[in-house]
Amino acid sequence: MTPVKIGILGLGTVGCGTVNVLARNGTDIAGRAGRGIEVVAAAARDIERERDCDTSGIRLTTDPGVVVDDPEVEVVVELMGGTETARDLVLRAIDAGKHVVTANKAMIALYGNEIFERAHARGVMVAFEAAVAGGIPIIKAIREGLAGNRIEWLAGIINGTGNFILTEMRDKGRDFEDVLAEAQSLGYAEADPTFDVEGIDAAHKLAILASIAFGIPLQFDRVAVEGISGITREDVSFAAELGYRIKHLGIARRMDNGYELRVHPTLIPERRLIANVDGVMNAVLVQGDAVGPTLYYGAGAGAEATASAVVADLVDVVRALTTDPENRVPHLAFQPDALSDHPVLAMEDVHTSFYLRLRTQDRPGVLADITRILGEHGISIEAILQREPDPQRGEATIIMLTHAVREGAMNEAITAVEALPHLLTPITRIRMEAL
Amino acid sequence: MTPVKIGILGLGTVGCGTVNVLARNGTDIAGRAGRGIEVVAAAARDIERERDCDTSGIRLTTDPGVVVDDPEVEVVVELMGGTETARDLVLRAIDAGKHVVTANKAMIALYGNEIFERAHARGVMVAFEAAVAGGIPIIKAIREGLAGNRIEWLAGIINGTGNFILTEMRDKGRDFEDVLAEAQSLGYAEADPTFDVEGIDAAHKLAILASIAFGIPLQFDRVAVEGISGITREDVSFAAELGYRIKHLGIARRMDNGYELRVHPTLIPERRLIANVDGVMNAVLVQGDAVGPTLYYGAGAGAEATASAVVADLVDVVRALTTDPENRVPHLAFQPDALSDHPVLAMEDVHTSFYLRLRTQDRPGVLADITRILGEHGISIEAILQREPDPQRGEATIIMLTHAVREGAMNEAITAVEALPHLLTPITRIRMEAL
Repeated sequence: MTPVKIGILGLGTVGCGTVNVLARNGTDIAGRAGRGIEVVAAAARDIERERDCDTSGIRLTTDPGVVVDDPEVEVVVELMGGTETARDLVLRAIDAGKHVVTANKAMIALYGNEIFERAHARGVMVAFEAAVAGGIPIIKAIREGLAGNRIEWLAGIINGTGNFILTEMRDKGRDFEDVLAEAQSLGYAEADPTFDVEGIDAAHKLAILASIAFGIPLQFDRVAVEGISGITREDVSFAAELGYRIKHLGIARRMDNGYELRVHPTLIPERRLIANVDGVMNAVLVQGDAVGPTLYYGAGAGAEATASAVVADLVDVVRALTTDPENRVPHLAFQPDALSDHPVLAMEDVHTSFYLRLRTQDRPGVLADITRILGEHGISIEAILQREPDPQRGEATIIMLTHAVREGAMNEAITAVEALPHLLTPITRIRMEAL
Repeated sequence: MTPVKIGILGLGTVGCGTVNVLARNGTDIAGRAGRGIEVVAAAARDIERERDCDTSGIRLTTDPGVVVDDPEVEVVVELMGGTETARDLVLRAIDAGKHVVTANKAMIALYGNEIFERAHARGVMVAFEAAVAGGIPIIKAIREGLAGNRIEWLAGIINGTGNFILTEMRDKGRDFEDVLAEAQSLGYAEADPTFDVEGIDAAHKLAILASIAFGIPLQFDRVAVEGISGITREDVSFAAELGYRIKHLGIARRMDNGYELRVHPTLIPERRLIANVDGVMNAVLVQGDAVGPTLYYGAGAGAEATASAVVADLVDVVRALTTDPENRVPHLAFQPDALSDHPVLAMEDVHTSFYLRLRTQDRPGVLADITRILGEHGISIEAILQREPDPQRGEATIIMLTHAVREGAMNEAITAVEALPHLLTPITRIRMEAL
């Protein structure tokens, strides 16, 4: 059979990684797919510069539209990033009846509903394994591997930069800003690290995971997002003392009255497998009603790890080229008419345990006042760790771990406690999950 | 669309689990597959007895052949276990043009080549996700999710009973026989535990994993197998002291001159994720050239965990019913004409590091004699742990960790050391992997 001809938009790290993997493993890939995969065209901002991949035999252009419109290109691989232009090009490919493979989590999170609707109407595939957790085949695992399950919840370390920073803070007792600067110099973090450290990148991915897990439309704007920039090395070390690690998790949970979609720093018992996922690695823990807990671990970024997912999607697309569109794996796991419109819960209605850190004046009765207020809001305390007070400064630090409570009640309690005259600084609160 | 009609052979734990999952999650499953899945017939040894599943509406028979031949049955789900009868029934289903889903690792490991060849010729699917690592979608992950990779090696904890025993031995300092008896009373281990503790069950699964990872035919008879019955709590505790855990691993590795296929107890550095997979849980670590290391974790057995994999296969089969057989995922990951005939290496040609435990007379010069012999065989030592000698008995215990060496050389060295007059018992040797 003749090879399937593809065009790549974007020859950056992942684009070049994809060219390299297709070249190096071409024989194995054809042995699996039943047909070869040939890159015939590619678009790049600068087609003159030296690259880490061999582009001989590939028609290069600076205009991605030329690749999309190239009559020889059967599958368009979008690896340019960004949202608006990428969306326009993907829709243009779909309208031309071409299949699409993309690694673009932001585009899928923001415009996926529109893109999949258009693709469904046109009978083409849009595959996006590389959009979440790099090379880990997590989309396929949830959408196909766990197809017999009602997914109850999932929790993932889905931003490698954030995990690298938290790991360094714990292992070496370093400060957030210090590690961030190093991550930037190592190339793990962007010059503008907002997407990584403020949780936006993780929220894009969580919106996608939740959609395929529960069969709900993509709802990025409903994800509650909190980053790691407020985590201090003090909190990391108190957590360790209590037997916990702080990880930045994306969590999606099915509740009777709706879905929880949230991204935030989280205390996890240190013996849990996911608490031991360190450095830039990613992992997603998925709880199905039949299978129980399953975990998927691997590199969440990097040229070839992401290319691994892109190529797996290409093989799937090649295999499904001749399939009746109605029998293909649905983009969002469920057939479009089977999507649920169950609501996403407000963060106030989410129940979790909490880690609280309070700085107070070192006076008799302070702890009694605090625990009384918490009690009045229905919050019960599981553990208290009181640091030796600092007599020089007349200050004490109190750490409390609470049992699960509605977040709205916790917010009210915190406001009331902070109104006490003895409180010196705002309360630090980090959510906890037993997983 | 009308539901796909299936027949189940075997209504034991997994059979009933499958009936229950299909009933409970029927709406979600149809929402994913695009069609419902209906159990119309089932065979069981005793159709009168009370079961943990609702069989109303299912035609029951004691003769599995009746289910296979039932003209209404489109997909045969083989969950009866055993090898010869199961094989005959599966071939009979294939010959009748029916698709097959099976959880039978022994049957696939022993007769898979014949079964897949027949299925390929007849244009039907035989799906076997449930045969390896229960509910973990590991077959799909390797065969499809990592399709862009050249798989370099994989290592798995793929027998839950063995892992439960080793975990208890470490956590509680218990003896092998003691924990085995408990595992039997808990129902984790069979009355005849040979398949679990001697590694045969793991070898069945490893043969399957190696086949889909490397694109080689199933070669169960070429797997080197060693069980855990020789592991003492002493070794578990020495390993811990040196920073290692002992796990029973199935390992498949691609080498220049062939493939390593081996199942044996293995020392793993304790900080590795897979070293922390405890109790009855399973995990498989897969190293691809593009993706790097990925790990898949979950329940390796149990009614509903295994049913989860069976149902995922059913959904795949339903989706592919109308696909041109040439475009389906190949049974063994690679197209039949792309399978490799690269050899499986003899165990003597495998290179690993070793843990050695020696009991010797407590005499000057003993250690010098031993290290001289090891040196003559090209074995270098990474660490030595000498226990305080027991003066009463005049004995010493020496633990050595070696660098990697060809197993043939190690075998010769051990024979030579054991010929020394000071050696009191045969040397205990356990392989090590850094992973």
